[in-house]
Amino acid sequence: MKRIPVVIAGCGGVGRQLLEHIVNCRALHSKQGLVLRVVGVCDSQSMLVANDIFTEELNDDVLARICLEKSRGTSLSELNDIGDCQVFDYKEATMQVIDIAGLLGRSTGLAVVDCTASSETLEVLKQVIDSGCCVVLANKKPLTSSMEDYQKLTSHIRRIRYESTVGAGLPIIASVTRVVASGDSVFRIVGSLSGTLGYVMSEVETGKPFSEVVQAAKRLGYTEPDPRDDLSGMDVARKALILARLIGWQINLDDITVESLYPEEMGPNSMSTEDFLGGGLSLVDKDIAERVRVASLKGNVLRYVCLIEDSRVQVGSQEISKASSIGRLRGSDNVVEIYSRCYKEYPLVIQGAGAGNDTTAAGVLADLIDLQDLFK
Amino acid sequence: MKRIPVVIAGCGGVGRQLLEHIVNCRALHSKQGLVLRVVGVCDSQSMLVANDIFTEELNDDVLARICLEKSRGTSLSELNDIGDCQVFDYKEATMQVIDIAGLLGRSTGLAVVDCTASSETLEVLKQVIDSGCCVVLANKKPLTSSMEDYQKLTSHIRRIRYESTVGAGLPIIASVTRVVASGDSVFRIVGSLSGTLGYVMSEVETGKPFSEVVQAAKRLGYTEPDPRDDLSGMDVARKALILARLIGWQINLDDITVESLYPEEMGPNSMSTEDFLGGGLSLVDKDIAERVRVASLKGNVLRYVCLIEDSRVQVGSQEISKASSIGRLRGSDNVVEIYSRCYKEYPLVIQGAGAGNDTTAAGVLADLIDLQDLFK
Repeated sequence: MKRIPVVIAGCGGVGRQLLEHIVNCRALHSKQGLVLRVVGVCDSQSMLVANDIFTEELNDDVLARICLEKSRGTSLSELNDIGDCQVFDYKEATMQVIDIAGLLGRSTGLAVVDCTASSETLEVLKQVIDSGCCVVLANKKPLTSSMEDYQKLTSHIRRIRYESTVGAGLPIIASVTRVVASGDSVFRIVGSLSGTLGYVMSEVETGKPFSEVVQAAKRLGYTEPDPRDDLSGMDVARKALILARLIGWQINLDDITVESLYPEEMGPNSMSTEDFLGGGLSLVDKDIAERVRVASLKGNVLRYVCLIEDSRVQVGSQEISKASSIGRLRGSDNVVEIYSRCYKEYPLVIQGAGAGNDTTAAGVLADLIDLQDLFK
Repeated sequence: MKRIPVVIAGCGGVGRQLLEHIVNCRALHSKQGLVLRVVGVCDSQSMLVANDIFTEELNDDVLARICLEKSRGTSLSELNDIGDCQVFDYKEATMQVIDIAGLLGRSTGLAVVDCTASSETLEVLKQVIDSGCCVVLANKKPLTSSMEDYQKLTSHIRRIRYESTVGAGLPIIASVTRVVASGDSVFRIVGSLSGTLGYVMSEVETGKPFSEVVQAAKRLGYTEPDPRDDLSGMDVARKALILARLIGWQINLDDITVESLYPEEMGPNSMSTEDFLGGGLSLVDKDIAERVRVASLKGNVLRYVCLIEDSRVQVGSQEISKASSIGRLRGSDNVVEIYSRCYKEYPLVIQGAGAGNDTTAAGVLADLIDLQDLFK
């Protein structure tokens, strides 16, 4: 039986779901001769660590308790009674992860999973890679920092996986990695990589005002608490950057042209979320409706896409043929079209649910399992 | 630099293209610290082996010469002047592969690539796996033999890859493997997995007689020399069996319901290819045209698909909604829809070129590269 030690940072939606998946897959993984040993779990305030990381782990009762408490909004720091593990505060947690990586990197190996949305994990992750350990990311921030940081993180390309940073669990990163590894050069990627914006753009097409659609999306839980985090396009830009770097481009977030779906003067610094949704947003309705109408006259639809081509990455609303995969997209599905030597005239298309904790955590788990050959 | 020894069986279209890809990717792979060392190449009559498999390989000049000669239809057995390698005849070749696997399995590891279309490689491949070596398949036959053979071949699941057996280089096997590994149970797969039949079915939809379309497909090089090899559905049945076994079903080729697109009395035992194409086939035109018409009245199209669901695998022509991924398919693209817990209402869809030596060989090469962590 191969025992893979894992540390999980972040136990909000995705991290908690990952813990549940790990417990639920015990029998399946055991059949393949694998055990995922969770030796540490962090949230934003503290960290639980097994008493002896070489021989012990947080057992399934402890993991179930963590899931339950986190679903109630409890902080890990309050779980002093949980037994068989140590609790560290935020400042100590960073050193703990580095120490565990140092110790296990020399013996069995370790996988550190970043399910946070923080830009502060980067430094720790670089040290984890330096220690000879593995990193799995659902967090886009570490990969979308400077090119220098990116190169450091990916310096041992087999030891880092990040499927769930783009299109949740959809096998986009794995597929592009395969295409690139076979020497099939990718010259164009077009994608609709935001479930939220996919939903919004396909709804406005039916004649509904943009502001109403955004409000409905917020009610349905499709948007961030402040929908401007989606409408700014920055989340899509990060995904596009990850894809562009994956196909070998040396570019930065600053190099990407990003169209925001609201004017700058309605930004978070000038207006509350309530004012934005209650009044500001409706000022954009007319413009969007007009663009939808113009597109429709040409047999096109308006979609919020990323376009990676000719050394440029663009993120914004574009007129797309109704007949294309992206034009036909409905609901909150994601789709990506990859054009390469082998997929020149007709692209390689990958489509499916691109959001949700279940599928995002499933992507992280598949990454973890795929790292198994690197463990002793 | 990690040096991965490779033996390639079959140097017709796919095998030859693989050799070219390997040579063309030298710089790319070297950047990742990898060298693919081709220590042996077989065709149906003989085998070339490097003089010392531990330290030498067939160099790029030799590989280029092999590609050139095979493209001219020359047998490897005629390449006695090629230098720096030994030539073995067919009977010796089998023992050679087993010997090489035995020797390298204990040291660096070895990957044996099966690019043949033969059912005779199975026994050797089982011994290769037994020796602790890896197997990469473009050949469907070894995986579609008895369940016992399948279990033997996949007994060390990380050491066998077979992306190019289904949908050429399309990342279908890799994607389903990821879904399964994350505990996301697949309950339904629908696919259009024959470029030839995809082309035929979408052409008859435009009103052309079935027999004319098949003849055109043959002229375009889309079919096997005897188009009945495609029209029988057995090739699709093998692909469906590989997918069904991948999601954990213990079934055999016999268990699959396969609809042939020509009546049994027009089979290869009763009729020559010429008689079949020249006369027999047109007797089917009316029936197919009628089925296309009936489907169309309901807003459907007729497609030749595989359906894996409810413990049954069916392969044949079915009415499919025009609006679905499969219904919209044009040309010789393949598409597969995967339904699982995470992709329940809307499936995970993978679409693209599902035939061609370039993409098939690219899939094999991506498999080889993905095995790298198993090599010392």
